[in-house]
Amino acid sequence: MDEQALRIALDTLWVLLTGFLVFFMNLGFAMVESGLCRAKNTVNILAKNFIVFAVSSLAYYLLGFGLMFGNGSPLAGTQGLVAVLGADNSPATGDAYRGVYAALGWTGVPLWAKFFFQLVFCGTAATIVSGAVAERIRFPSFIVFSAIICAVLYPVTGHWIWGGGWLATRGMLDFAGSSVVHSVGGWAALAGIVVLGPRIGRYKPDGSPKPMYGHNMTIATLGVFVLWFGWFGFNPGSTMAVNAAAIAHIAVTTNAAAAAATLTATATAWLLLGKPDLSMILNGCLAGLVAVTAGCAFVSVPSALAIGAAAGIIVVFAVVLFDKLRLDDPVGALSVHLAGGVFGTLAVGLFADKGLAAAIGTDAPALSSGLLLGGGLRQLGAQALGVLCVAVFTFGLALVVWLLIKAVMGVRVPRAEELRGLDIGEHGMEAYSGFQIFTNM
Amino acid sequence: MDEQALRIALDTLWVLLTGFLVFFMNLGFAMVESGLCRAKNTVNILAKNFIVFAVSSLAYYLLGFGLMFGNGSPLAGTQGLVAVLGADNSPATGDAYRGVYAALGWTGVPLWAKFFFQLVFCGTAATIVSGAVAERIRFPSFIVFSAIICAVLYPVTGHWIWGGGWLATRGMLDFAGSSVVHSVGGWAALAGIVVLGPRIGRYKPDGSPKPMYGHNMTIATLGVFVLWFGWFGFNPGSTMAVNAAAIAHIAVTTNAAAAAATLTATATAWLLLGKPDLSMILNGCLAGLVAVTAGCAFVSVPSALAIGAAAGIIVVFAVVLFDKLRLDDPVGALSVHLAGGVFGTLAVGLFADKGLAAAIGTDAPALSSGLLLGGGLRQLGAQALGVLCVAVFTFGLALVVWLLIKAVMGVRVPRAEELRGLDIGEHGMEAYSGFQIFTNM
Amino acid sequence: MDEQALRIALDTLWVLLTGFLVFFMNLGFAMVESGLCRAKNTVNILAKNFIVFAVSSLAYYLLGFGLMFGNGSPLAGTQGLVAVLGADNSPATGDAYRGVYAALGWTGVPLWAKFFFQLVFCGTAATIVSGAVAERIRFPSFIVFSAIICAVLYPVTGHWIWGGGWLATRGMLDFAGSSVVHSVGGWAALAGIVVLGPRIGRYKPDGSPKPMYGHNMTIATLGVFVLWFGWFGFNPGSTMAVNAAAIAHIAVTTNAAAAAATLTATATAWLLLGKPDLSMILNGCLAGLVAVTAGCAFVSVPSALAIGAAAGIIVVFAVVLFDKLRLDDPVGALSVHLAGGVFGTLAVGLFADKGLAAAIGTDAPALSSGLLLGGGLRQLGAQALGVLCVAVFTFGLALVVWLLIKAVMGVRVPRAEELRGLDIGEHGMEAYSGFQIFTNM
Repeated sequence: MDEQALRIALDTLWVLLTGFLVFFMNLGFAMVESGLCRAKNTVNILAKNFIVFAVSSLAYYLLGFGLMFGNGSPLAGTQGLVAVLGADNSPATGDAYRGVYAALGWTGVPLWAKFFFQLVFCGTAATIVSGAVAERIRFPSFIVFSAIICAVLYPVTGHWIWGGGWLATRGMLDFAGSSVVHSVGGWAALAGIVVLGPRIGRYKPDGSPKPMYGHNMTIATLGVFVLWFGWFGFNPGSTMAVNAAAIAHIAVTTNAAAAAATLTATATAWLLLGKPDLSMILNGCLAGLVAVTAGCAFVSVPSALAIGAAAGIIVVFAVVLFDKLRLDDPVGALSVHLAGGVFGTLAVGLFADKGLAAAIGTDAPALSSGLLLGGGLRQLGAQALGVLCVAVFTFGLALVVWLLIKAVMGVRVPRAEELRGLDIGEHGMEAYSGFQIFTNM
Repeated sequence: MDEQALRIALDTLWVLLTGFLVFFMNLGFAMVESGLCRAKNTVNILAKNFIVFAVSSLAYYLLGFGLMFGNGSPLAGTQGLVAVLGADNSPATGDAYRGVYAALGWTGVPLWAKFFFQLVFCGTAATIVSGAVAERIRFPSFIVFSAIICAVLYPVTGHWIWGGGWLATRGMLDFAGSSVVHSVGGWAALAGIVVLGPRIGRYKPDGSPKPMYGHNMTIATLGVFVLWFGWFGFNPGSTMAVNAAAIAHIAVTTNAAAAAATLTATATAWLLLGKPDLSMILNGCLAGLVAVTAGCAFVSVPSALAIGAAAGIIVVFAVVLFDKLRLDDPVGALSVHLAGGVFGTLAVGLFADKGLAAAIGTDAPALSSGLLLGGGLRQLGAQALGVLCVAVFTFGLALVVWLLIKAVMGVRVPRAEELRGLDIGEHGMEAYSGFQIFTNM
Repeated sequence: MDEQALRIALDTLWVLLTGFLVFFMNLGFAMVESGLCRAKNTVNILAKNFIVFAVSSLAYYLLGFGLMFGNGSPLAGTQGLVAVLGADNSPATGDAYRGVYAALGWTGVPLWAKFFFQLVFCGTAATIVSGAVAERIRFPSFIVFSAIICAVLYPVTGHWIWGGGWLATRGMLDFAGSSVVHSVGGWAALAGIVVLGPRIGRYKPDGSPKPMYGHNMTIATLGVFVLWFGWFGFNPGSTMAVNAAAIAHIAVTTNAAAAAATLTATATAWLLLGKPDLSMILNGCLAGLVAVTAGCAFVSVPSALAIGAAAGIIVVFAVVLFDKLRLDDPVGALSVHLAGGVFGTLAVGLFADKGLAAAIGTDAPALSSGLLLGGGLRQLGAQALGVLCVAVFTFGLALVVWLLIKAVMGVRVPRAEELRGLDIGEHGMEAYSGFQIFTNM
């Protein structure tokens, strides 16, 4: 075996193993959502979080991957659309690549490795929505929305940014998906919240929020640890090649942001709310991870600490703000993925360091240094354009989809079912048989 | 360091890391079984699932590995039996290999890497039994059976199929162990169920089943996510070498089957039982994974979807059928591992694609294309022969072993202990101290 | 790309992936501690275990790494102290290395990969303390101690042994950290226990212990499985390079010790206490893992079995002993990490096999074969010296730090808060909202 074959083997191993870690994040999301919601809805939450990846797998295979990475127009892929059946001579790269998925022609791994890695990212975007619409959505309606986000919503903006589409051309950069994955999930979630409305009893007649406590903080914490762990696949794996300097750097920037955000969220909650609320600590960590995702390959470790520190503060205020707006988000998905994703995308325009990126091999022709590193407004402008366009497209289309689902099949469970718990109503079983549980909370 | 050494290093890294993932499946099995059983037996279930891998580690080291992979006869290894002490010049491969574990001479990694990877597979077979005999078996009796399955039962049929034995000679193929691991575990579990009988109160005097609900669906779901994650070690890792095309393909076929099975099991349960039962969704996923395990390296992605889809339907009917036969299987181990394993083994004879296997480097001289791909009955015949022989040998011998254990040390806890819960009786402690739990369910 | 670059890529991939596994051990520690303590303190335990890695990340980055691996004196690093900013031309190795972290010049990976791997080890030492001081420590006081152990306590003895310091010069060897990580955590924990005193009601007026049962054995067992899994990163990863023979060997010795310890702890508890207590089974496994950590690269598989077997017996007696001494250690951290760590460090002096180490490429100039392999007392003497010096330094300094914290900010929550549970007092929330729980246990 020659060096080229060894290189392909090594890169494929990396792409698959980090992809497995990202797959594992499905467990993290399932546990965070279960833990932060009430016991009476747990079976439903678990079922949603479990089936969503099965739905993603099918929808992304049948249509999404082609729409996202197929050759075609700046707006969407138009070749090799269905079932990953387009011509492709991977792992050939660069000029040697011949095929219809040219946007992934830069990475020297087999087509199925590319598909698998992109699939687990798509699954992440879909599962983000789940937490925001929890405790009131009909199970079949959630399944339908999941199929649509994976088949259409996620792939289209993904094409714009990662598929060689028009935002990529305009210089927007999102290394591992603060926008492509997290804010897309966040905007879709926001549309769902708007259409669904808040849970019964969540806001008092005077508009003030009534806290609804999670039933299992142990499981929620487990979930966040799993997500932090999985993020070491998400960000370093997005190199899709074993570039030693890059993956080591990205592992450290990713961790630095998570750590800083954990600490600042703890401090902010302590100061703002009087005590260090555990759910704020956990969401702080996640917000830091989301925020550094766009820039992890372009920023220094001190910059990653700054990005994380800011995200940890932002998330606490975002939770308070969304609650004031009566946007009932049971797990804080908007604060983490939408606020964190938008901030993180913009942060590339503040902290990107072209010299550093060149040194570790992650430079891109479109990359300019950020505003705080003396690069001016060029990168920040491209990032802001990306944020705006993703917002308009994803929120707008998701709103239409949710409204269509509402009209056709209904979106919310009956009032009696919501009060009793969705577990009995949707699934005919309870999560904790034998345990004495108060369900009227 | 030259290319050959790099190749060995790369393959060893792959074998170990995927082996770690398979080890992690022990957590998955422990959580699925705990979650799907009653709270009063949880400590016992955890203890069984924890100690079983320790027992496996010792039994497979002392005897099992040699019996399975040692040179010798078509029926069992006879050389290098004890403590992996046989002569061996691994990582030399092929004609350069000199040693008594020639059946593993095709993979270029050190002997201890081979041992470790095979050990975690053996542990899987042993832990499958645990779920089927839960909530009524004596703790020491389970330990003894675990030692025997790892030292003798699993290695012997493993030798027939993977150790260069007589079934391999007849062309039976089982890439990652639908038969070698899962149906062996399933047959041994069936024998245990027959000898133990159902749990008290499980069937009413008229023979109709009375459901006994799991006490923690969150933990059960966590377990299935961990198993799905671990299966990315189980199937792709079974290449025991970093063949880029093969491991990428296998990751996708594995996931495709899991996803399809999840969806068809959900739909089948919805139609058959009126609601999408979560335990059916979870067991559907597992059945799809078990079923694709034999053929993951030989079938296309659409075929993997078909195999998974069928397995997801089969598992629901199997649960109903085993219940009609009054075979009390608390976690559905028979439906998942036995039904899924048998179907998956036969499915190689239906869906195998020799051209595809050649293209991704997983072809074997014995492989013929399956019946549905125009290859005739040859492969299906070999698979059916394998299924039959594994069934007769494993079920027969396991039955003898269980009956011997029953005669010598007893196999079932006293009635009063079963009603009170095995936790106090076998271990002197409870799982959820402080929680109000109804134990008379 | 040439062979050298491939080698660096492969080694970096290994260091990072095994580092991710070690990071994941934070989840294991969090779940073990939560599960073995009472429900009313769960939020506090989770918050401690979560924030401790964030604190570690910052403290080790700002000071610890430089103190541990910076060039300078035999007592501590004095160059490149702050923020990993010292000169360094990694991944150059050996004579080609130019920089201030020469003690890590033997491993050919980028500096940030070295930092990340060492960071997750530091985090382990810090999190060990958490379990010992659980259910009575003030949250801010724990945070401060965590920062100090990561910034100063852990790095200093780490420098002595791994940083080219004076104990390394005297021939002490600790491959993956039985002393550097585990006994350091154990000594710091012991000092904390001494300063804190036992939980209210833990010892009766006559001095006899009153058991306080863990509230969730499922979660505790999950934690130990995660730790066992993570240890496959901890020990094999400590090669910091893909040496095929070494990593395969270490995976097997690590697992062998865990398995043997599980079995002997089970048997010992069964004989001593009448029943196979699950918490003893779990702590037995952990003690085996801790004990083999120092010698995993230097001992044979049978020796690893012997080390594990001994550790599994030791841990049961240690639990009883520490209880007799009224050292209230809610999770058995002293028995596992301190007793296991000290025994494991000494076991190198008993079981080390220089010939074997040479064969698998883990030999060190300082290594002598152990006493039981005919190597005399030389290695045992070096190990004993190391144990003694780490004990005096870490216990002594940790005691001073704990006493200072006590004087400045207080170390223990008020009596009423301890009785009511720290969750409400420290964090203003409960872990299991809706569940009926008896908190007066």
